[in-house]
Amino acid sequence: MKFTVDRAPLLRALSHIQGVAEKRNTIPILANVLMEHDGEILRLTATDMEIAVVEEVPSEATRAGSVTVPAAVLFEIVRKLTDGALIEFEQATSEDPLHLRAGRYATSLNVLPVDDFPAMVAGDLPHHFDIQAGDLRGLIDRTRFAMSNEETRYYLNGIYLHIVLEGKKNYLRAVATDGHRLAKVDTPAPFGVKGMPGIIVPRKTVTEVRKLLDNDGASVEVALSETRIQFRIGSILLTSKLVDGTFPEYMRVIPQNNSRILRVSKQDLAAAVGRVAAISQERSRPVKLTITKNHLTLSAISPDQGIAQEELDENSVTYDSDDVEIGFQARYLTDITDQIDAEAEFALADSSSPTLIRDTGHPDALYVLMPIRV
Amino acid sequence: MKFTVDRAPLLRALSHIQGVAEKRNTIPILANVLMEHDGEILRLTATDMEIAVVEEVPSEATRAGSVTVPAAVLFEIVRKLTDGALIEFEQATSEDPLHLRAGRYATSLNVLPVDDFPAMVAGDLPHHFDIQAGDLRGLIDRTRFAMSNEETRYYLNGIYLHIVLEGKKNYLRAVATDGHRLAKVDTPAPFGVKGMPGIIVPRKTVTEVRKLLDNDGASVEVALSETRIQFRIGSILLTSKLVDGTFPEYMRVIPQNNSRILRVSKQDLAAAVGRVAAISQERSRPVKLTITKNHLTLSAISPDQGIAQEELDENSVTYDSDDVEIGFQARYLTDITDQIDAEAEFALADSSSPTLIRDTGHPDALYVLMPIRV
Repeated sequence: MKFTVDRAPLLRALSHIQGVAEKRNTIPILANVLMEHDGEILRLTATDMEIAVVEEVPSEATRAGSVTVPAAVLFEIVRKLTDGALIEFEQATSEDPLHLRAGRYATSLNVLPVDDFPAMVAGDLPHHFDIQAGDLRGLIDRTRFAMSNEETRYYLNGIYLHIVLEGKKNYLRAVATDGHRLAKVDTPAPFGVKGMPGIIVPRKTVTEVRKLLDNDGASVEVALSETRIQFRIGSILLTSKLVDGTFPEYMRVIPQNNSRILRVSKQDLAAAVGRVAAISQERSRPVKLTITKNHLTLSAISPDQGIAQEELDENSVTYDSDDVEIGFQARYLTDITDQIDAEAEFALADSSSPTLIRDTGHPDALYVLMPIRV
Repeated sequence: MKFTVDRAPLLRALSHIQGVAEKRNTIPILANVLMEHDGEILRLTATDMEIAVVEEVPSEATRAGSVTVPAAVLFEIVRKLTDGALIEFEQATSEDPLHLRAGRYATSLNVLPVDDFPAMVAGDLPHHFDIQAGDLRGLIDRTRFAMSNEETRYYLNGIYLHIVLEGKKNYLRAVATDGHRLAKVDTPAPFGVKGMPGIIVPRKTVTEVRKLLDNDGASVEVALSETRIQFRIGSILLTSKLVDGTFPEYMRVIPQNNSRILRVSKQDLAAAVGRVAAISQERSRPVKLTITKNHLTLSAISPDQGIAQEELDENSVTYDSDDVEIGFQARYLTDITDQIDAEAEFALADSSSPTLIRDTGHPDALYVLMPIRV
């Protein structure tokens, strides 16, 4: 094969793709990128056998063909070439190294057989819908922090996407939980989404798809079955297996009758949590909230370092119910306040029951946080 | 004690000081900052028993006194207070916690006895000189990368500062080496420096002093004996023990008769080294230089990934001597080119002998690099 390609689009494609290629070299070919040129277009593919990303790059070929070379090395080389470089690729026969030339720089990259590169079979994907990149990003950003890292609870290592009917309207809903907190975000159901099964999109897929959602206005074509999902974003096609498990019945975790309503400025709360938690060296950094009429005291105790507290008054707080004392992990609180624009609404039951948190400006999102003893 | 202090100067002082306080809590009081107020000025001290930093901060006291509290926690709290905050400190008796208050935020920090805080005795410091911060920074920046990390070669874990007479002029010279490379930089001897002993400034002291040299024009007062050095920079006083060892006779390592002179554009060389080394996954990333008349070929081989090369011609290279092939570690080469402004001059003997590298624009600096087999 023999072709030329501009550095900029090739670098962009490799930056998208190299996150999927395997770094740990257990199966060497998974560290490679497959480059295929049909004479019209250059197609780059990387896969870890769970996810495959294919990106098309404009390129002129004088001889079509295909080859696989180490993805990380090629990315590093292309990154270091000068801006605006035109890169020539050439392979004499399928067993020869791939020659790359740009100006006075030349490299010969070792190849692995194209036939060994695993194909990701998407199979039949009966469900299709289009969603704006900005909407998909909102679903991801406001839930991903709550995904579990525990490998044994593999069915929580992702975002649960499914359709719900609420008040005669259909919504596409994203839910994530690690058992300590839960995040749930709805967006109006895109056309065509009806009838789709509930699916769990794995953590790595969430991360890789999120990287591709720079352009808010772009349209993302989603297609899925019960075992696969595919995202088409411009010239990029990402196919992923889904988590083969059952997401828990999360609605049972969401309290329905928490009647004590605290409203608090997101900015004041986040700053106070950070300052108060600074006293604690523990990983969980527990922070106690003492809530009285239009008043919130945050406090933390460290046996080694001392104690800290901060008071928020009616300028930042609205509350008119029974006094409550309740404790949370500082990081779990700030993970949630990071998603909130201006004002957080806490719906509390008592000091040991799950607490509901909402963004008063975005009723489509809801968070549940388990308290801890303080 | 009871005093108030503005957040900004306190934060600045704590940011300087907390790098010296011990993070590993083997001796708890070394994690603390000593705060002393004599009624006129607040004085903060941190020490790891090798280095002590003292910084004075403007502050108004209503009751003088002294106290020690955890440095990292205090820094974290002050950093998170709002810009422009006025902070009140108060301790009832020397056994009580230290209360800190800023607006609606309050903390009580556990204290440790002031008497347990180790005093750093500088002793008699007979040698004094003043040096511009920019000059001291030049000595540090152009040599520190060559310091050794090997704890067994403790006498190489720092920068060797001493006076040399060259051509009837005295210079203050900084030298560092790890056995693979050596860096040597001279600056005209400041007034008063004559007669000072050769000293080895330890790595951590180099790092902490370097942080204080933001302002090029500032004057740094240096005082030293055979065992201690002291730097006064504005309201900061840093005292450090010196490495108790003998620096090797480095002049023996510097080749005197390398007669093959290669001049090469620093920018072109650095870019080519980066691109060529990108093929190699080894830690040392060996790069081979093949030097012929006005021509330099850089090349690297990776058994796994392939080979790479780049050619630099008479637009970037001047050479008119016998052909040479020589190999270097990529990172060692770029550590040196990072110090060079525009053009590097290599003085070579042969492929297995130490190579001299200079910045043609800065004859005061000289680097020696040991080749490796390629």
